[in-house]
Amino acid sequence: MKNNLYLPFDKARMEEVYPVQSLKTFALSVFNKMGCPAEEAERATEVLLSADLRGIDSHGLARLSGYVRLWEGNRINSKPNIRIVHESPSTAVVDGDGGLGLVVAPKAMQIAIDKANTCGTGWVAVKHSNHFGIAGFHAMMALQHDMIGIAMTNASPLVAPTFSVERLLGTNPICVAIPAGQQPPFVADFATTTAANGKLEILQRKNKDAPEGWIQKKDGSGSINANELKDGGALLPLGSDRDHGSHKGFCLGAWVDIFSAVLSGANYGPWVPPFVSFLAPPADPVGEGIGHFFGAMRVDAFRPAAEFKSHMDNWINRFRNAKTVEGIDHLIIPGDPERESEADRLVNGIPLNHKVVEDLKELARKMDLKF
Amino acid sequence: MKNNLYLPFDKARMEEVYPVQSLKTFALSVFNKMGCPAEEAERATEVLLSADLRGIDSHGLARLSGYVRLWEGNRINSKPNIRIVHESPSTAVVDGDGGLGLVVAPKAMQIAIDKANTCGTGWVAVKHSNHFGIAGFHAMMALQHDMIGIAMTNASPLVAPTFSVERLLGTNPICVAIPAGQQPPFVADFATTTAANGKLEILQRKNKDAPEGWIQKKDGSGSINANELKDGGALLPLGSDRDHGSHKGFCLGAWVDIFSAVLSGANYGPWVPPFVSFLAPPADPVGEGIGHFFGAMRVDAFRPAAEFKSHMDNWINRFRNAKTVEGIDHLIIPGDPERESEADRLVNGIPLNHKVVEDLKELARKMDLKF
Repeated sequence: MKNNLYLPFDKARMEEVYPVQSLKTFALSVFNKMGCPAEEAERATEVLLSADLRGIDSHGLARLSGYVRLWEGNRINSKPNIRIVHESPSTAVVDGDGGLGLVVAPKAMQIAIDKANTCGTGWVAVKHSNHFGIAGFHAMMALQHDMIGIAMTNASPLVAPTFSVERLLGTNPICVAIPAGQQPPFVADFATTTAANGKLEILQRKNKDAPEGWIQKKDGSGSINANELKDGGALLPLGSDRDHGSHKGFCLGAWVDIFSAVLSGANYGPWVPPFVSFLAPPADPVGEGIGHFFGAMRVDAFRPAAEFKSHMDNWINRFRNAKTVEGIDHLIIPGDPERESEADRLVNGIPLNHKVVEDLKELARKMDLKF
Repeated sequence: MKNNLYLPFDKARMEEVYPVQSLKTFALSVFNKMGCPAEEAERATEVLLSADLRGIDSHGLARLSGYVRLWEGNRINSKPNIRIVHESPSTAVVDGDGGLGLVVAPKAMQIAIDKANTCGTGWVAVKHSNHFGIAGFHAMMALQHDMIGIAMTNASPLVAPTFSVERLLGTNPICVAIPAGQQPPFVADFATTTAANGKLEILQRKNKDAPEGWIQKKDGSGSINANELKDGGALLPLGSDRDHGSHKGFCLGAWVDIFSAVLSGANYGPWVPPFVSFLAPPADPVGEGIGHFFGAMRVDAFRPAAEFKSHMDNWINRFRNAKTVEGIDHLIIPGDPERESEADRLVNGIPLNHKVVEDLKELARKMDLKF
C-alpha cells in the first residue's frame, strides 16, 4: 500500500499535467505584472510552487487568481515596505505593510534565523500580512542551518470552537520542521482542524459526502454535506466533538491565533479578513491584516548538532519500522508524503484540476499573458 | 449547565473530602521523610497539591505513593544536583540528576524566565528527570512576570501512532499559559491524545466502557474496554483515527517527545522509563531519565504589555460570549474549569477517591506518619 496521504483522491480524472518550469514561468510573469520587485516575484513563485510540488494543491497555483483579485481590490500591496517595528535580542515584530504573505513570511523567518544565530533562538510575530502559502516552506528554511523551524498563521474564520455555532477561528496551521542526519527531516505541517479546508474542496468537486466529524450545521449539529459552509456551517477543531477532544483542537487553533495576531497586532478570531475578494473585511478591525508567527532554534544551542541529528535518525528509524496494523507497510513519519510528492512531481510534472486550469487561462487572458 | 469538564464524573460517590492544609501537611511530611531538602520538599508539595486543587486528580496525591516506591527503588534521587550543562543566551539544557520532576521542573522553568528577562525569550530542555505533575503549574509560573509560559513533557509509552500496533509515545501533554488584563489568563493544558489516561482510570474505577475512538486493541482494531491497555492495547493520538486526523495528534505527541528528549539528551519514544516501580526501565536506554521542555516569552518583547493584555481581554470576551449550541450557556475558555475547581476546593476541600485514601493511609503506616 502506498501511503500517499496528501495527494488528492481524484488524481486520475479531471486533471492536466504541466511541467514545473512552465508553471513557474507563468506564476513569475503574474507576480511581475502585479508590480512585485524582481527578487520578491521570484520568492513568491518559489513559495507558491512548493505547495504544488509537495502535493498541497489547495495552496499552490489554485490560489494565484485569488491573490490577483485581492491586489486589484487594493487589499494586497505588491511593493511593501516590510520592516521590524519592535524587537529584543531573541524576538521581533514585523509589519508586512499589506504585502503578499508569500513574500512577507520568508523575510520574517529569515529574521528569526538571524536572531537564532546570535541568541540561540529567534521568534518573530508578523502583522499586516496576507495568506502565506504553506507553513512548511517557511519552517523548512531553518533546516539548512541545523535549526528547528516553526511557522504558524491565523486565517479567515471557518471553524467553530467546541459548543459554538459561530465561526471564530481559521484552520490555523502549525508546522514544526526538525533536522535529522541520514534520515530526511521531520516535517509536521497540519491544520488544527479535523480536516483542512482543501480536503473539503476536493469532496465538493467530486460531489461526495464528508465523513462525520469534519463539519457542523449552522445550529451546531453534525453534517456530512461537503457544502455545509455555504449555508452557515463550520469546520470542526481537531478532535471533532467534546468526547473526542475537540476542546484540545480549539486550544491549538486559539494558540496559533494569539501568537500570530495578539502578539503582533494583527486581526484575530472573527476579525481576520477573508482571503477572497468578494467578501469585505470586517468594518471594525482590531489590528492590521492577518498575522503569522515564526520560530528558529539552533540545535547546538541545546546539544552538539551531530549528536542531536544522530538521535533524530534513531527516533525516525524506530518509529518508521514499528509494527503496523495489517495492510500497512510502515508508519508514516511527518514529512514523508510531501517529500514523495515533490520527488515525483519534479520529474513527472504537476497535475492541475481542470477548474484550476480554466481559472489560470482566464487569468492569463485578463493580464495579457500566455498560459 | 455547569461546564466543569475536568472534575471527575464520579464525584458524588466513593470519596472523602479533606481540607487542603491537612493534605499539604501530609505531603510535606512524606517529602521530608524521603530526605528532600526543606525548600524542595515545600516546592514539591505545592506542585503536587496544585493538581488536586485544579481538579486534575490523577496527577495529585494519587501519585504520591508511586513517587515513594520509585525513590525506594533508587529511581528517584531526593537530593539531586540540578544544573545547567549547556547554554546559549536564550537556551539551556538542565540535568535533573534523577530528581523529582516536581522539583526539577520549576527550577528549569525559572531558568527560562530568567533568560527571557535578559533576552526576550528563554527555552530550557531537561534530561534525567521524572514525572513533573501537571504541566500547567510550570507554564503558569510565567504569568506573574507578564510572560507567556510553555511546558511540555514526554511520558511512559502508552500511545500508538497512526497505523502502529506498538505503544511508542506517552500522552505527552502541552501547556500554554497566556496572561490577560481584567480577564483570567488563557491556560490550555492538555494531553496530546484523544483522552488523557486519568479519564480512562475513572472509567476503570466505575467499571464503565470508554467511548469509541479513545483506545485500540493490541491488533490495532478499535475497543471500548477501559482495561484494554492491560492486554496490550493503546491510547490513541488526538483525532482517534486517520479519517479524523490522528496523524496530527501523532505529530503533536512526536513534537513534544523530540523537544523534551532529543534536544535534551533524555530517553524518547518507547525508551522512556515507566512511571511505576513494578515495571523495569528499558535495558538499552538512549538517554537519561525522562525529558521536559519549557519556554518563557516576555510579552513586551513583542508589544507593550498593557496593549497585549487589553487585546487578550477582548479575545477572551469575544470567544466566551459567542453564540452557543442549545443547552450551553457560554463557551469554555481554556483554563476556566481548572480555575473554578481551584476556587471551590480551596474553600470546600479536596475530594479524594476511597482507593487513594487507602493508599495514602498505607503510605502513612509504612513511613510512620499520620494521615
